[in-house]
Amino acid sequence: MSTICADAAPETTLEERIRRDPARFRVLTGDRPTGALHLGHYFGTLHNRVRLQDLGVETFVVIPDYQVLTDRDVAERLVATMEGLLLDYLAVGIDPERSVIFNHSAVPALNQLLLPFLSLVSVAELGRNPTVKDEIAHSRQSSVSGLMFTYPVHQAADILFCKGNLVPVGQDQLPHLEVARTVARRFNERYGQVFPEPEALLSAVPQLLGTDGTKMSKSRANSIALSADADETARLIKGATTDADRHITYDPEARPGVSGLVLLAALCLDRDPHDVAGEIGGGGAAALKRTVTDAVNTRLAPMRARRAEYARDMGYVRSVLRAGNERANAIADATLTQVREVMGGLVRGHSS
Amino acid sequence: MSTICADAAPETTLEERIRRDPARFRVLTGDRPTGALHLGHYFGTLHNRVRLQDLGVETFVVIPDYQVLTDRDVAERLVATMEGLLLDYLAVGIDPERSVIFNHSAVPALNQLLLPFLSLVSVAELGRNPTVKDEIAHSRQSSVSGLMFTYPVHQAADILFCKGNLVPVGQDQLPHLEVARTVARRFNERYGQVFPEPEALLSAVPQLLGTDGTKMSKSRANSIALSADADETARLIKGATTDADRHITYDPEARPGVSGLVLLAALCLDRDPHDVAGEIGGGGAAALKRTVTDAVNTRLAPMRARRAEYARDMGYVRSVLRAGNERANAIADATLTQVREVMGGLVRGHSS
Repeated sequence: MSTICADAAPETTLEERIRRDPARFRVLTGDRPTGALHLGHYFGTLHNRVRLQDLGVETFVVIPDYQVLTDRDVAERLVATMEGLLLDYLAVGIDPERSVIFNHSAVPALNQLLLPFLSLVSVAELGRNPTVKDEIAHSRQSSVSGLMFTYPVHQAADILFCKGNLVPVGQDQLPHLEVARTVARRFNERYGQVFPEPEALLSAVPQLLGTDGTKMSKSRANSIALSADADETARLIKGATTDADRHITYDPEARPGVSGLVLLAALCLDRDPHDVAGEIGGGGAAALKRTVTDAVNTRLAPMRARRAEYARDMGYVRSVLRAGNERANAIADATLTQVREVMGGLVRGHSS
Repeated sequence: MSTICADAAPETTLEERIRRDPARFRVLTGDRPTGALHLGHYFGTLHNRVRLQDLGVETFVVIPDYQVLTDRDVAERLVATMEGLLLDYLAVGIDPERSVIFNHSAVPALNQLLLPFLSLVSVAELGRNPTVKDEIAHSRQSSVSGLMFTYPVHQAADILFCKGNLVPVGQDQLPHLEVARTVARRFNERYGQVFPEPEALLSAVPQLLGTDGTKMSKSRANSIALSADADETARLIKGATTDADRHITYDPEARPGVSGLVLLAALCLDRDPHDVAGEIGGGGAAALKRTVTDAVNTRLAPMRARRAEYARDMGYVRSVLRAGNERANAIADATLTQVREVMGGLVRGHSS
């Protein structure tokens, strides 16, 4: 029989440790600025970010603009995309007083960590990384670039510059995080304790599907953006793929289209998807889509209202990023100074 | 029959183009801060650097401290090593009014170029680089680090941040420079003309051997440092490896020890090594060593005097690096701004 109240007892989950002492944790999370955030982001990560923030966990949100500027199409829309991201963050409840939103290229000291970090992982380790392998397989490029190959090290710098010790990830991102953990551990062993070994906070939410029954993704044009209005949302859901069976059930394997819609409604309503499906029963795709549309629009209504309010004051929105960048720079500079000191006093060499 | 005076005629050598219009060139060169500079550096590169500077070529001298700080032994001596380098530079005639001396870690914008540059070379290209292969083979590390693997890209950033278009190299460094040329060419093709394709200025000086008859190298303890005094120089040359043949000849293949000493004397005296050997003739190793000692000490005397003078004013010496870093930072910031602009306006995204 297990006991409950012992400190750090083996059965204490990460979630329990966070709730017990949120101030011990610092989250690093973020979104590539490649397009508008959608419901998949909301239920997959944004919702959890706000929850952690509201628990009292200090939260850092990086917009890794450096990672995307090599894609011309993305780069040309970057300013608009970044402003959209900021509006989405504020709309979903990320609070700039408690969370730091910054963009990668505005924090030069962060990238300075790349050189020592690159020295701590081998080419063999980088090549073995399954996430890199996967990105290589799905890449439009015919050959793997040095940037893609070293991507987990860049991500390690993103996490460790602010000494993030908690990273919300999906199962598929665990190998990336493992590189950050390796870098932190080896750095500490070699030079002295500077970095935490960041822990993965695995997402508990099942993957949300898009309106075509495949993974919801900006690049597949099957997503409902947080910035979409009620009419556009209704139109998108109306056009979603379903099937010929009028009786609605939740069976993600056999009926991805219908089940994706059921799951979306269930997430919006904070209900079990089987219950939602049971209630619709023989109402068919039309009833399902009405339920989903109502659920999404009701859930998003307060966020849309906040988004519209913030959009009337873009000066403030931009100031959020400026303030976040200032704070991120101060932290990155302090970390870099500490890194140089433990590595042998480079800083003294310059300034004396 | 070839004509001579046509502009950019095929037979115009790089050396001729430099002499004709030195202001069109900008040299990037430098020395890893791993120990004291020695006669091998002087005749291999420093002498040529001063010559180019005096011709009117703007010269940038990078001390790549970031590249060495992962070696604990080196890092611990880094402050002293950097000060020694600065004294050596000033002693040999590098003029801070005409040349920019800076250290890598003091110029953060330089490293920011790594991300776009890494995206322009493939893993296959990095793996094929023979210099990297060679460094891997001679490395004490059991596996190749990400830092070593990406080293040519770091060097490309060192050269291109200041739009260096002339890089003095030995034959063995040509593949490194080829990566920098590739990065520059691909960047320009993809985003617009920003970088020159740097040209290699191949060293004309035969490789100087150390006192043990192998390549003169800090790590083999066979070198004569520029900072050595006359007595230490005499002692080091006295201990040099020669052979049993009393008749002195210049025959690098068959008699590396003797020929290395002959070459050293010849370089110091600006004479042909065969002539120097012929003059000593049957005088044997003792006469050879006297000749070499005199030649080296005479050649180094004015540099040593200048070095001692500068060493009395270390405040000034450090200010040279500070001023160089300021200039390098201004140039790096301007280049990075230009890079971001052609890549899609990142900078506007932050500051607006």
